[in-house]
Amino acid sequence: MIREIDASEFELVWPIYRAVIAGGDVFAPSPDTTLEVARRMWAEPPARTFVATLDGTVAGSYMLRPNQPGLGDHVANAGYIVAPEARGRGLARAMCEHSLTTAREAGFTAMQFNYVVATNTGAIKVWERCGFAVVGRVPKAFRHAALGPVDILIMHRFL
Amino acid sequence: MIREIDASEFELVWPIYRAVIAGGDVFAPSPDTTLEVARRMWAEPPARTFVATLDGTVAGSYMLRPNQPGLGDHVANAGYIVAPEARGRGLARAMCEHSLTTAREAGFTAMQFNYVVATNTGAIKVWERCGFAVVGRVPKAFRHAALGPVDILIMHRFL
Repeated sequence: MIREIDASEFELVWPIYRAVIAGGDVFAPSPDTTLEVARRMWAEPPARTFVATLDGTVAGSYMLRPNQPGLGDHVANAGYIVAPEARGRGLARAMCEHSLTTAREAGFTAMQFNYVVATNTGAIKVWERCGFAVVGRVPKAFRHAALGPVDILIMHRFL
Repeated sequence: MIREIDASEFELVWPIYRAVIAGGDVFAPSPDTTLEVARRMWAEPPARTFVATLDGTVAGSYMLRPNQPGLGDHVANAGYIVAPEARGRGLARAMCEHSLTTAREAGFTAMQFNYVVATNTGAIKVWERCGFAVVGRVPKAFRHAALGPVDILIMHRFL
């Protein structure tokens, strides 16, 4: 079950967000990001925020927004996080497909990911299965907690 | 002469900003962007803003900021605008070189442009002369006022 929330409900997402940034391996915000800063980036307009529930518990979240203002606002951007204990159950795939439908309904004609960590091969496979292709690669743009500087990928698909 | 300003001095930049967005050919913000929205995007922290003066008049501006938070904040992002009447006098090149020095001094180790309109060939040549290389291309991500949807380039260099 996936439903939209507003910024005042970000506390539902925060335990997952905090667990994901704690790893320092897949996501730009640093492990010491505060709840209020995370809320601003993930849940305040123009971002829209969704939560996915598994067995009655919030286990994942995604956010959807225009990737650029004005003459670039036909391209959506999205981000996805999954609780560590809920990995391997298809949640990222389900949220990605849901976000593609939501983006189409909102009038976007494409979706772009700006910052896919190149060593996060599990996620990259999911995005490829959801129709995304790599359109760019930026060297050493992410300071991976265990691996040091690694590349990031830019991924894209039309809707 | 290039000097740093703060957000309260954005009115110095606004006539140039407004002239650049009016063209709808090189920059994401739409022609109807208000001064306050432009100030927020161009001049409020974490962005730093600089103006370039030619013959005693402000003729160009650039902004410099981290391209990502946290584990991506070692990569700078920058944007440059030049007054239409000051084009062809090397101002973009001078501001770009100045921004590279400023970024190095601020501790950044690379710079990335996220949104270079692929038909803006004059600018692309300047960025290449400043050491940038194309690392990505997103199809039809900019709605060009005259040409319709055109590609955008992602450009990068280490510092």
